[in-house]
Amino acid sequence: MNTVITKKKHNFFAGPAILPASVLKQATAAIEDFAGMGLSILEISHRSKQFVSVVDEAVSLTKELLGLDDNYEVLFLTGGASSQFYMVPMNLLPQDGTACYINTGTWSDKAIKEAKLFGNVNVLASSKESNYTSIPKGYEIPADATYLHMTSNNTVFGTQHHAFPETNVPLVCDMSSDIFSRPIDISKFGIIYCGAQKNMGPAGVTLVIVNKNLLGKTGRPIPTMLDYNTHIAKGSMFNTPPAFPIYVSMLTMRWVKENGGVAAMATKNETKARLLYNEIDSNPLFEGTTAVEDRSLMNVTFKMKNIEMEEAFLADCAVADCVGIKGHRSVGGFRASIYNAMPIEGVQVLVDVMKKFASKNA
Amino acid sequence: MNTVITKKKHNFFAGPAILPASVLKQATAAIEDFAGMGLSILEISHRSKQFVSVVDEAVSLTKELLGLDDNYEVLFLTGGASSQFYMVPMNLLPQDGTACYINTGTWSDKAIKEAKLFGNVNVLASSKESNYTSIPKGYEIPADATYLHMTSNNTVFGTQHHAFPETNVPLVCDMSSDIFSRPIDISKFGIIYCGAQKNMGPAGVTLVIVNKNLLGKTGRPIPTMLDYNTHIAKGSMFNTPPAFPIYVSMLTMRWVKENGGVAAMATKNETKARLLYNEIDSNPLFEGTTAVEDRSLMNVTFKMKNIEMEEAFLADCAVADCVGIKGHRSVGGFRASIYNAMPIEGVQVLVDVMKKFASKNA
Repeated sequence: MNTVITKKKHNFFAGPAILPASVLKQATAAIEDFAGMGLSILEISHRSKQFVSVVDEAVSLTKELLGLDDNYEVLFLTGGASSQFYMVPMNLLPQDGTACYINTGTWSDKAIKEAKLFGNVNVLASSKESNYTSIPKGYEIPADATYLHMTSNNTVFGTQHHAFPETNVPLVCDMSSDIFSRPIDISKFGIIYCGAQKNMGPAGVTLVIVNKNLLGKTGRPIPTMLDYNTHIAKGSMFNTPPAFPIYVSMLTMRWVKENGGVAAMATKNETKARLLYNEIDSNPLFEGTTAVEDRSLMNVTFKMKNIEMEEAFLADCAVADCVGIKGHRSVGGFRASIYNAMPIEGVQVLVDVMKKFASKNA
Repeated sequence: MNTVITKKKHNFFAGPAILPASVLKQATAAIEDFAGMGLSILEISHRSKQFVSVVDEAVSLTKELLGLDDNYEVLFLTGGASSQFYMVPMNLLPQDGTACYINTGTWSDKAIKEAKLFGNVNVLASSKESNYTSIPKGYEIPADATYLHMTSNNTVFGTQHHAFPETNVPLVCDMSSDIFSRPIDISKFGIIYCGAQKNMGPAGVTLVIVNKNLLGKTGRPIPTMLDYNTHIAKGSMFNTPPAFPIYVSMLTMRWVKENGGVAAMATKNETKARLLYNEIDSNPLFEGTTAVEDRSLMNVTFKMKNIEMEEAFLADCAVADCVGIKGHRSVGGFRASIYNAMPIEGVQVLVDVMKKFASKNA
């Protein structure tokens, strides 16, 4: 364990979530003095060449990390994934068109609700009946759908799409909680969007990756700020962007690149998840909450076979400086979010707490 | 002059703009460790009690500083003032209603464009013909207007409304560049909005103050995230808010309060503006660009009588560590933005540069 881990808490919050220690250090320095300007990054013009180069680097790192070709534009917007729930259909779905959705939890459900304001919505499959403990499979995708929307990772329930459908219909994907966590085949996707505050940076910026060939086909008047083409034309600088959240996201992308890119992140994430799920499966007091084949590598949900022991376990976690473990109210139990920035040593601390708790309660 | 001023540049940027040195210091500390949590403010849950108390304090400081009564709700949103250009009419203006606008520059003009998507727009008065060098006066306000929109301070052109119209029509006001700079009579206003990055905090958060009695009357379906009532019901926490920009804004409001509130800010702002305008008017090389009675106390625009000397003056400003002085491309010349956080000593440095420049070029 390095100094940072021993000094700081082990941060298992679902989001806003852990950031690399080196990123936090650079963020601090930039608030004191950015790029030798004698000014804080919080008080410089977004049109200054120093800040323009931050945005340029964030765009270019996104393209490089995800292997985007020239069909794709990279935008840094605001409003969170929740704003993309309406911006996507507003920009893509004609009033008489049909968008397909897969409902895998809270966030999919919200996306479906907003899309209904703009056109026809066809929910192809849903795991709602089983309280979203699995990812639906084997559904048919109508060839004439405008797009197919899915949530790649379900933060609340701890499930994840480990594969994406084979289809010619463009996928629109909310990757808020697993962006940059693994390689993807970009050619399947029309739009990828994510709130930054899980795997990419702090709260306050929303990444939108859009295949520009899909735009301008709805015939609908769109307010200037809600039209993807506005932000494409101005390189995310139509108005003042959320400068500091973009800067910290850019630093985090640099960190991903320096640590081997998304392929290396995937390997590390698999190792961390295996360590924790193995303990859940082998420890006599715990059990997982989702279908094994759909388990998320980002948000590990689990509970105690005897729920009366949960408070005592949470207390032990607190003593070991493990924070953010309590499960979402709609699932109960525990949730350990182990995003890119969580080191394997942090997961090991939690596993050790689980082991010790089992032996003292044997 | 204190240590900070001698160490740092004199920041005259129009926005993102200068923040109080003490605020920057606290912001840095919170990135290292927030509220003794052993975590950075960038990586904690927005539902944690520590962050909820930040939002609560930001709301309560806004109410206290501006004297808001219980009719008004305080929201911290994203998307900048540019997003309020469409959210205001979307939430307030019925399709067959009429909204009145006063056009005093770039930002008013953009607000007018967006409103036309939602209902009838009546531009009561405009100073466009004179390149926005003054504030229109003496116009009639139709009693049946849904609202009257104005931009209180025009960052680009350097003009400011020093009084607001006497009318029963609710005013909607973009106060992006002069919020918290002076006392206002809140009872005139239906909505006040502002991007944070001039007088309130860093880029990435938008303050919206709304009289809740005006809402819910358009009959229009509104996407969840664009409905003010969504954010009122959830205290700006319907989805993950821009946590760090809200925190820094709250710190800045605390600083305003500790320094005497908006009345004291107004006195200080008048003193600073008088110092600079007096030099512009008495220095033989310079002249103002706007009607004297409409001069902004926030953004002081001026130029040289001989424009060939402008480069040399800018070079002298740079030597004196005065940055962000170059005027907006649509006005030319110079613009010194002297928001709340600019100390009088900073303005004095600029005035001294002007004096010395005049004497060496006499």
